[in-house]
Amino acid sequence: MINKENPIGLFDSGIGGLSVLKQFIKFLPNENYIYLGDTARVPYGNKSVTTVKRYASECTNFLLSKKVKLIVVACNTVSSVAIEEVSSHSDVPVIGMIFPAAIASVRSTRNGKIGVIGTRATIESNAYTKAILSITKSASVENEITINSLEPNELKEKNITVYNKACPLFVPLVEEGLMNHQATRLIAQEYLEPLKSQNIDTLVLGCTHYPLLAPLFSELMPDVNLIDSGEHSAVAAIRLLGEKNLLNPNSDALIKNPSVKFYVTDIPSTFNDIAKMFLNFNISEPEIVSFGN
Amino acid sequence: MINKENPIGLFDSGIGGLSVLKQFIKFLPNENYIYLGDTARVPYGNKSVTTVKRYASECTNFLLSKKVKLIVVACNTVSSVAIEEVSSHSDVPVIGMIFPAAIASVRSTRNGKIGVIGTRATIESNAYTKAILSITKSASVENEITINSLEPNELKEKNITVYNKACPLFVPLVEEGLMNHQATRLIAQEYLEPLKSQNIDTLVLGCTHYPLLAPLFSELMPDVNLIDSGEHSAVAAIRLLGEKNLLNPNSDALIKNPSVKFYVTDIPSTFNDIAKMFLNFNISEPEIVSFGN
Repeated sequence: MINKENPIGLFDSGIGGLSVLKQFIKFLPNENYIYLGDTARVPYGNKSVTTVKRYASECTNFLLSKKVKLIVVACNTVSSVAIEEVSSHSDVPVIGMIFPAAIASVRSTRNGKIGVIGTRATIESNAYTKAILSITKSASVENEITINSLEPNELKEKNITVYNKACPLFVPLVEEGLMNHQATRLIAQEYLEPLKSQNIDTLVLGCTHYPLLAPLFSELMPDVNLIDSGEHSAVAAIRLLGEKNLLNPNSDALIKNPSVKFYVTDIPSTFNDIAKMFLNFNISEPEIVSFGN
Repeated sequence: MINKENPIGLFDSGIGGLSVLKQFIKFLPNENYIYLGDTARVPYGNKSVTTVKRYASECTNFLLSKKVKLIVVACNTVSSVAIEEVSSHSDVPVIGMIFPAAIASVRSTRNGKIGVIGTRATIESNAYTKAILSITKSASVENEITINSLEPNELKEKNITVYNKACPLFVPLVEEGLMNHQATRLIAQEYLEPLKSQNIDTLVLGCTHYPLLAPLFSELMPDVNLIDSGEHSAVAAIRLLGEKNLLNPNSDALIKNPSVKFYVTDIPSTFNDIAKMFLNFNISEPEIVSFGN
C-alpha cells in the first residue's frame, strides 16, 4: 500500500536531472520531491552499459529506502540502457525519459523525419528509435513497462524515420555555462548539420542538459519542433499517478515553495551555481550520502 | 624488501594518464608497467577533495596489491589534492605530477612569470603555486614527501609569480579528438588570454590531457615554454629509483615492446580510440577490475 503523500523520487547521474525536476514542479506543484544526484560518479553518458546498470540499481535502492511513491529516472542515459534494471528493483511505479518523449515526437512530426540527440550511451542504445518504432507499429514496448497507459495506438499509421546523433560535448559546455558562446554554436552547427540535411521537422532533446540549449537549437533550426523529454515525462507522470490513485491530495503545497529534499554523492565547488542555472531558484543545502562507493 | 624487477604502477582517473605512461616508457623502457584507469568514476577534476581522496586511496591499494615498486600518481588532480593520502597508504615510493613540473617551471622562467593550467580541482588546490613558492623559498615542501632528492636549492633566489587558470573544457574536447577544431581554438584563446596578458614565459600543462593540445598552445603563445608534467615526473622517477637502487637491471626489455598491463574499472565504447590517441600504439586488452564501487 503506497501512501499518496509520499514523495516522488527522481535520480540522475548528476545535476542535469534538475531540468526534469523543474518540469515536475511546474506540472505537479503539490507533490513532495526527493532528488538524488550521483555527483561522485557523474557522468554516466560515456560509460558502459554494465556500469550504468550497476549505478542505476544503487540509486533506485536509495530512493526506495526513502519511501518514494514513484521513481522518475531523470536521466536519458539510464532510461535508455537500464530502465529494466530499475523496474526490476522497484516495487513502486517507474517512469523514464524515453517513452513520453518518443510519443510526443511521433505526434509532432508532419514529414515523418525525427531527429534524436543525446549522450553517446543514449544514442548507441537506439532506445528512442526502438520506442518510436514500437509506437508506430503499435508493438509492445520493450523496457518501458510503466507507460502502457499512454495509449499510443492512434499513432500507428505514420511512416517514421529516426535520425540519431550523439552530442557528447553539449553536457560539459552547458555545465561551464557557455550556452551563448561561439564555440558552442560551432559545435552545435557541426552536430546538427547531418540532421538538418535530412530535413527533420522534430528534434528530441534526449539529454537533461539540452533544454538549456533550446534557444540555440531554435536559432539554428527555426522550423524544427523541439521535444523536451523532462516536460513530457512530467505530463506522463500526472496520468500515471492519477490512474493509480496516487496523486497527492494536499493542496496546501500549491501556495508554498516547492518541497524538495536534495541528496548527492559529492558536492563539487560548482554545485550551487550549476543547480541554480538549471532550476532558476536556489536549492536547499543538499545532503551528502554514500552508497556503493 | 622491494624487488627491482617489480612493475612501476601508474594510476589515473581515466585515460589521460596514458600521456604520462608514454613518457615513462620513453625514459624508462626496460621497466614493467601496470596502468590503472578508474574509468567507471572518471573524471576526478570536477569533484570534491573528499571524494578524490577516497578514490585515490582505493586506487593506491589496488596497485599495492599488484606488488608495484613505485606508485606514479599519473593524474594532476590527485597529485594536487591527495598525494598525502596516497603516500600514507603506501609502503613503496610515490611520485606525483606537481613537484617535478614545478621545478622545471622555475628552471625555465626568465622573467619570473609562470602560468599554470589544469582542472578546476587542481587549480583550486593551488598545489603548483605552493610547490613553486616552496622551491623558491627553499622551504620544506608539504605533501610531496618523496621528491626530496631533486635538490631544488639552486633555484631559491628567483622572484616568481604564478598565474593559475582552470580550463575544464580541455579534457572533453581532447577526448572528442577535437585538438584542431575551431571551437577548441576559441576556447583556448579565451582560457589563455589572462595568462598571455600577464606576459608569462612558461606554462605548466597541469593536466595529463593537455600535452595533446601542445601544438595549439605553441601556436597561440609562440614564445612560451611548455612544461609537460608527465615528462618531468618520468625523469624524476629515474633519479628516485636510481637512488633507491630500484632500477630494473633487465636490459632485454630494451629490445622488446613495452611491458604494460592495463586495468580499468569500466570499458566505454570509445576506450580503444582514445587510448591510441594518447599512446600512438594499440594497447593490450585491458582487464576490468572492481574496487570501491
